[in-house]
Amino acid sequence: MSRPGLLIVLSGPSGTGKGTICKCLLEKNPELELSVSKTTRPPRKGEEDGVNYCFVTVEEFKEAIANQDFLEYACVYDHYYGTPRQAVEKKLAAGKNVILEIDPQGAQKVMRAYPDGVFIFLLPPSGAELRKRITCRGTESEESLTKRLAAASQEVMQASKYNYVVVNDEIASASERILSIIQAEQLRVKRNQDLIWQLAEEVKE
Amino acid sequence: MSRPGLLIVLSGPSGTGKGTICKCLLEKNPELELSVSKTTRPPRKGEEDGVNYCFVTVEEFKEAIANQDFLEYACVYDHYYGTPRQAVEKKLAAGKNVILEIDPQGAQKVMRAYPDGVFIFLLPPSGAELRKRITCRGTESEESLTKRLAAASQEVMQASKYNYVVVNDEIASASERILSIIQAEQLRVKRNQDLIWQLAEEVKE
Repeated sequence: MSRPGLLIVLSGPSGTGKGTICKCLLEKNPELELSVSKTTRPPRKGEEDGVNYCFVTVEEFKEAIANQDFLEYACVYDHYYGTPRQAVEKKLAAGKNVILEIDPQGAQKVMRAYPDGVFIFLLPPSGAELRKRITCRGTESEESLTKRLAAASQEVMQASKYNYVVVNDEIASASERILSIIQAEQLRVKRNQDLIWQLAEEVKE
Repeated sequence: MSRPGLLIVLSGPSGTGKGTICKCLLEKNPELELSVSKTTRPPRKGEEDGVNYCFVTVEEFKEAIANQDFLEYACVYDHYYGTPRQAVEKKLAAGKNVILEIDPQGAQKVMRAYPDGVFIFLLPPSGAELRKRITCRGTESEESLTKRLAAASQEVMQASKYNYVVVNDEIASASERILSIIQAEQLRVKRNQDLIWQLAEEVKE
């Protein structure tokens, strides 16, 4: 069982509940490995350094960029976010399935670098619901909120570039659907070519 | 919810347990619809007309071919097998997921006619196991058995043309994996383009 793990990218518009879904996925499937992003954004209430994000300074972040330490990084609403490359590649090589919870800007960069990844776009149950979720978070300024709403419609259209869409109507069932995707992707022919050849040889003997 | 159903094709070498898996899938998910094939092969013990197959004469089968009534048909070990086209298309149009349990020869024809179908190849747990299953069925003549073994290795290689491979190591778990594939396929972006457009419009309003 030395085949590499799956790189699973969970993205979607701000306020769609990517973080909550990710937490639920890890609870339901403890074998999944979460990639912890680095960010220069200040921690939100309840966020823990090294668990939700690694919180770093702008200087530290820029140094990591210079060292090509990121699989992808992006600047979203004036803060940097980046996925540490080495940690992810090590886990994949060890056969672990790694999940990245990143914004659509970052996801597009990963698409180019890892076309074999599994790209899942999380959708809100409705447009109205997305507006409500963004508004209710209450951690943004008025100006930042307007920016986020305008970006959200554009971001929803990005879904067309992904492999799967999952509507986050209910956390548990949306998570179950994502686990089905992970299960199914492991069964794709392109990931099982060695097995096919081996069996065909055995039958001949 | 007027979107068409999925055409799911379950194929694999003779003796891999397609029939048993199919039965289990229908028990676990009663919303799946099985397409009942027509065949000129005599019924095996326990097989019921209209349930496992519609048993017809060679004349009736040839008339159906002439009328283009088959989605695919093939001659396997001197018997005809065919999938009635109209019944399948009617179910798909009504949004039902239809499962075809057919041999690899027939599956290839369906691949050309329905590239959007979901093609699943059922593999034996090992080459030895496949030989054993074919030998133990005990409903074939010696000559027919030799033919089947020789064909099996070739057939396993056909798996590369499918979307998914599922190893039939244990009926219940193999069936669960197939249900995950069906679930995941319904979430593919190409089958949800209307939903994406609709949501992007709603957010803008």
